[in-house]
Amino acid sequence: MNVLLASTSTLYGGNYLEYLTEEISTLFDGVDEIIFIPFARPGGISHEEYTQKAAEFFAKIDIKVKGLHEFDDRVSAINSGKGYFTGGGNTFLLVKTLHEENLMEILKKNVESGKPYLGTSAGSNIGGINMKTTNDMPIVYPPSFDCMGLVPFNLNPHYLDPDPDLKHNGETRETRIREFLTQNDTKVIGLREGNWIRKIGDRISVEGSELTRIFEKGKEPYEIAAGSEL
Amino acid sequence: MNVLLASTSTLYGGNYLEYLTEEISTLFDGVDEIIFIPFARPGGISHEEYTQKAAEFFAKIDIKVKGLHEFDDRVSAINSGKGYFTGGGNTFLLVKTLHEENLMEILKKNVESGKPYLGTSAGSNIGGINMKTTNDMPIVYPPSFDCMGLVPFNLNPHYLDPDPDLKHNGETRETRIREFLTQNDTKVIGLREGNWIRKIGDRISVEGSELTRIFEKGKEPYEIAAGSEL
Repeated sequence: MNVLLASTSTLYGGNYLEYLTEEISTLFDGVDEIIFIPFARPGGISHEEYTQKAAEFFAKIDIKVKGLHEFDDRVSAINSGKGYFTGGGNTFLLVKTLHEENLMEILKKNVESGKPYLGTSAGSNIGGINMKTTNDMPIVYPPSFDCMGLVPFNLNPHYLDPDPDLKHNGETRETRIREFLTQNDTKVIGLREGNWIRKIGDRISVEGSELTRIFEKGKEPYEIAAGSEL
Repeated sequence: MNVLLASTSTLYGGNYLEYLTEEISTLFDGVDEIIFIPFARPGGISHEEYTQKAAEFFAKIDIKVKGLHEFDDRVSAINSGKGYFTGGGNTFLLVKTLHEENLMEILKKNVESGKPYLGTSAGSNIGGINMKTTNDMPIVYPPSFDCMGLVPFNLNPHYLDPDPDLKHNGETRETRIREFLTQNDTKVIGLREGNWIRKIGDRISVEGSELTRIFEKGKEPYEIAAGSEL
């Protein structure tokens, strides 16, 4: 497999996908056109505009982008695709749409066959086993929380450390993930912004500028350095 | 109806339910025993310990507390109950448990018949139409997101204003609720900590120390003062 699952599309003060340019060029080496999956985007911009935003980045590395929403037969479009990028937004909306159109399994099979896959945020969540560690609001009800399982764990994108100054009683991100582990025995990768997971063949590593926080049932959370295998 | 839905159980620096003592005394006036629903609590403390925590507060106002988990026949326990308190935790776990045990409808009917209901956080979310505006992580998959609809809108407890200093690309609470409104035409009450919703008969108002932020489809969010009718 050839997979890149990033915490975020955009670093604070940076441009869309800019910090990942070199990694994305390597991921899609030899590919001249990819399918963009815009379904996580619930509002603000249309699927067309969202696809255009992705296309503007990919034009810089000479890759054409087609939005999956443009196709009448989306299953065929995925099967004919040479590579895939799923952008961020709302994971519930993304997963609902993919399941309802029977695209989750089709996408999984194509990525497992070796076609490159890029995800950011919600698009990274669906690379995990299920979406039970998303940060998103459940604005729609998906028929299942199951995802592609391209990696044998769950992700928590935009992982955020507790703010000791916050005078607020809402749960911290760490508390939420610990709650997940009371109900599930699935490793969770707390992926800070600036980091990504890379899978090449069977080798999975975490990359980027930050430490990565790992949560496992029955263990204290621990940190691993960029370059570590998962 | 006689309902109190609070943003949080505990104010920063305060003790459990302390800031609501007078309101809770009024809500449960004439009631000497209530049923506590501890099912939102996914870990850390047991249902017994959670019930004990609630019982310690209610002992101060001479009300006995029985945990719903103690009963073999929970439907009967709710039907025989004189009043109810659902504590916070994870809304997905709470809603899943209530639906799987067919308790959501039973509780709704009893509260609609006039028995007093107190919710905090997740326990307040279930007073809304559905749980699609919870902040919680989807650690389990409920059979439905529908809730009791004791009030004709949704709640967002622990409503948090954006932090302009945060160098982080995750969605703000306001962005999330706006995303909800792209998919749903349901009013959302952004309930800051320190505030609560009170329903007495047919009159619904927002109370507490803070302004309350209201979100409606097709409108800019707006603020209302404590004491305003909803």
